[in-house]
Amino acid sequence: MKETRRTRRIIVIGANAAGVEAASAARKKDRTAEITLISQEKNVGYSRCGLPFVIGGQIPSFKDLIVYLPAYFRMLKLNLKTETKVTSINTKEKTVTVFDKEGATESLPYDSLVIATGADAFLPPIKGREKQGVLSLRTLEDGERILEAVQNGAKSAVIMGAGLIGLETGVALIERGLKAPIVEMLPQILPAMLDADMAKMVQEHLQEMGMQVLTGKAVEEFLGDDKVTAIMAGGEKVEASLFISAFGVRANTKLAVDAGITLGETRSIKTNARMETAIKDVYAVGDCAEAPNMITHKVTCAQLGTIAVRQGKVAGTNAGGGYSLFPGILASAVARLFEIEAGVTGLTQAAAQRAGIEVVTGAISSKTKADYYPNTLPIKVKLVVEKESQRIIGAQIVGGEEVTQRINALSFAIQKGMTVRELAKADTAYSPPLNETWEPMVLAAEMILMKLR
Amino acid sequence: MKETRRTRRIIVIGANAAGVEAASAARKKDRTAEITLISQEKNVGYSRCGLPFVIGGQIPSFKDLIVYLPAYFRMLKLNLKTETKVTSINTKEKTVTVFDKEGATESLPYDSLVIATGADAFLPPIKGREKQGVLSLRTLEDGERILEAVQNGAKSAVIMGAGLIGLETGVALIERGLKAPIVEMLPQILPAMLDADMAKMVQEHLQEMGMQVLTGKAVEEFLGDDKVTAIMAGGEKVEASLFISAFGVRANTKLAVDAGITLGETRSIKTNARMETAIKDVYAVGDCAEAPNMITHKVTCAQLGTIAVRQGKVAGTNAGGGYSLFPGILASAVARLFEIEAGVTGLTQAAAQRAGIEVVTGAISSKTKADYYPNTLPIKVKLVVEKESQRIIGAQIVGGEEVTQRINALSFAIQKGMTVRELAKADTAYSPPLNETWEPMVLAAEMILMKLR
Repeated sequence: MKETRRTRRIIVIGANAAGVEAASAARKKDRTAEITLISQEKNVGYSRCGLPFVIGGQIPSFKDLIVYLPAYFRMLKLNLKTETKVTSINTKEKTVTVFDKEGATESLPYDSLVIATGADAFLPPIKGREKQGVLSLRTLEDGERILEAVQNGAKSAVIMGAGLIGLETGVALIERGLKAPIVEMLPQILPAMLDADMAKMVQEHLQEMGMQVLTGKAVEEFLGDDKVTAIMAGGEKVEASLFISAFGVRANTKLAVDAGITLGETRSIKTNARMETAIKDVYAVGDCAEAPNMITHKVTCAQLGTIAVRQGKVAGTNAGGGYSLFPGILASAVARLFEIEAGVTGLTQAAAQRAGIEVVTGAISSKTKADYYPNTLPIKVKLVVEKESQRIIGAQIVGGEEVTQRINALSFAIQKGMTVRELAKADTAYSPPLNETWEPMVLAAEMILMKLR
Repeated sequence: MKETRRTRRIIVIGANAAGVEAASAARKKDRTAEITLISQEKNVGYSRCGLPFVIGGQIPSFKDLIVYLPAYFRMLKLNLKTETKVTSINTKEKTVTVFDKEGATESLPYDSLVIATGADAFLPPIKGREKQGVLSLRTLEDGERILEAVQNGAKSAVIMGAGLIGLETGVALIERGLKAPIVEMLPQILPAMLDADMAKMVQEHLQEMGMQVLTGKAVEEFLGDDKVTAIMAGGEKVEASLFISAFGVRANTKLAVDAGITLGETRSIKTNARMETAIKDVYAVGDCAEAPNMITHKVTCAQLGTIAVRQGKVAGTNAGGGYSLFPGILASAVARLFEIEAGVTGLTQAAAQRAGIEVVTGAISSKTKADYYPNTLPIKVKLVVEKESQRIIGAQIVGGEEVTQRINALSFAIQKGMTVRELAKADTAYSPPLNETWEPMVLAAEMILMKLR
């Protein structure tokens, strides 16, 4: 008598970028599996990266950010449980315990589990942080709260933290007519993304567009009675009607830790190349998981949407009985702030130095179109080259347009071990309305060759 | 007694993209050399690729296209002879004979010679081709002639040949309010650049924008008495006030052939990796020279500005006593036609088949921004992958924006031997106003992987 193979049960905790991608990839591998997505949130399958653009008014409604609608989950036969909290994971019995919106508790068995619990906005231990009125921008509801305040007539907002989210939110609020000074503890904006020289270009543009940028000023205290009415930053009192915390995010690892799943050096969940945790059949992906940087081989937690979907796809494929490896992180990222675009891939000069890698760098300022073509915009390319191998290991670009795909081009170059000599002779495309004859990336490589001679 | 080293004498024939680049590179290698550029043209150092955009009105004047002004030649101490014809090269005595604008003949000695004689517009042996009034767009004067005709009230122009120059000229004339039907012998536009499926997208856009495209129609006769007033194409009579010949260009090799310099399979000047011809110390670069394609290793004459400057730089470095190799041609190219951009790098599917390379191809239609972001534009990426190695050997992209740097990204990928599997997992950059979460190039790679499984 032939035994029927039991249906595979896959549970995914989290239903945004990483979670939905994992569930979708699992479905592609196993057409009969019982796949359940569990989310604490009411809204799932939405684009977090889009939140600032609803606040800024480019996108009409937060609902527009919902990329995966109920029809998607139905089509792929994904069982979706929203407003449901996973209270524990039992890796021995292979079950998760959930507490749903009706107040019911249930234990769900799994064959494969994918943890995509993401990260939460982090508020440092600043004096007065228990007071009301400090908003962050992480969830759709966070976005709605900020937009509501704007629509209720808020005149100013102080942004705490000049990372990508802080800057994008500040830009959005200025576009809505608010004053939005930004306070950053470190001496430069975008400290995790750009070297100081490149960040300066961005900062100058932000200031020209009306953003007050206060670098080198730590937030020391939240002032006000029950509700925050001002902050002290670098000894200066800054009043505002809104207070946006953009200090960064921290991986949500409590569930994993309670279940005995090992964290790594970055205090996020440790994974192998299959995105599997230290416990068999349990995967972790996205903002709560760590993986190695392609260049340093050191673990990192990039907390980028693009990394989340890539890891989700790998884990989902494996959870569905397939085989897939995650190749590591370069953390290519890009942002548009007012009329400037800034991008990075691989290591900054500062990050390379922290990793003990000896580098030669070169930067070139050029144009995005032929010099004689109307509306040509400035662009600056900085390359970071490892001295011994002469391989490109990082790039930063700031310019008026056409930054994103140059970052992708240099990301491909880095991933394939292109040397600066090869880049200096690379075959590139040109037409007067679209590029300069000598591509700026190639000119930046030339600059470095002159230093290496 | 110490002998003084004699000053190196370098002669460059031609003073546009390839020639000026060669002279400049030679100067960088040898600060004391006597470097002479000789050009038949009155205007030198201008951007040929910019000509259609003066006709179209984007650029105010043809003079704006002169990228290298007299001050540049003075600064680099380059001796420039314009309106001077080289009548012969004597490779044994190492001299060139010139005939200048005052009617004087002179013999100039060289240690190194760079031939950058370019190419001329080609008019096939069509009945009636001796008649007046067929214009081409190759030199600055050609451009001035066409613009003058437009300004004198020409109402229509028939463009013969739907290559890049033909299409760019047609678009420019339509932008000036003329009717500009385009006649192409082959069944598709851009036959040397794109596969039929991708060319179709471009053709549809051109037609939407008001260009009449007549493919599969050879020009059979120029009609009219002394002056052409109509053409017969595919049995159809097409009348117009202007007739633009854009059949292509042919390498100017007469000087080289007369001097006994060997031509290659493409009937342009044969070169080695240093861009040196069969005769020592004589180099050939740009539109008159051939070099190997990086993938097929077969010689080709790409006749692109970007290839011309790269070859010019290599030859100039060598002519100046340095050492530099030209790595070969991928022929990355891009164009903007009305509101669409089209680009290519490496082999098209058709070119791969002609070269006997077995390929798997895949194409994906996507968007240039997040789907929910306003003004996102369509983009289509087609990849050509060599079946055995699974390496990417060609790419074509047609889209509303952000095409050029994707072509460069795929050019880098091809040059470094990236496989379609690697591309499917590549680390790319994303932000809602700038790209989709899953980069279209990566999705195209996914498409091919599904075919390979």
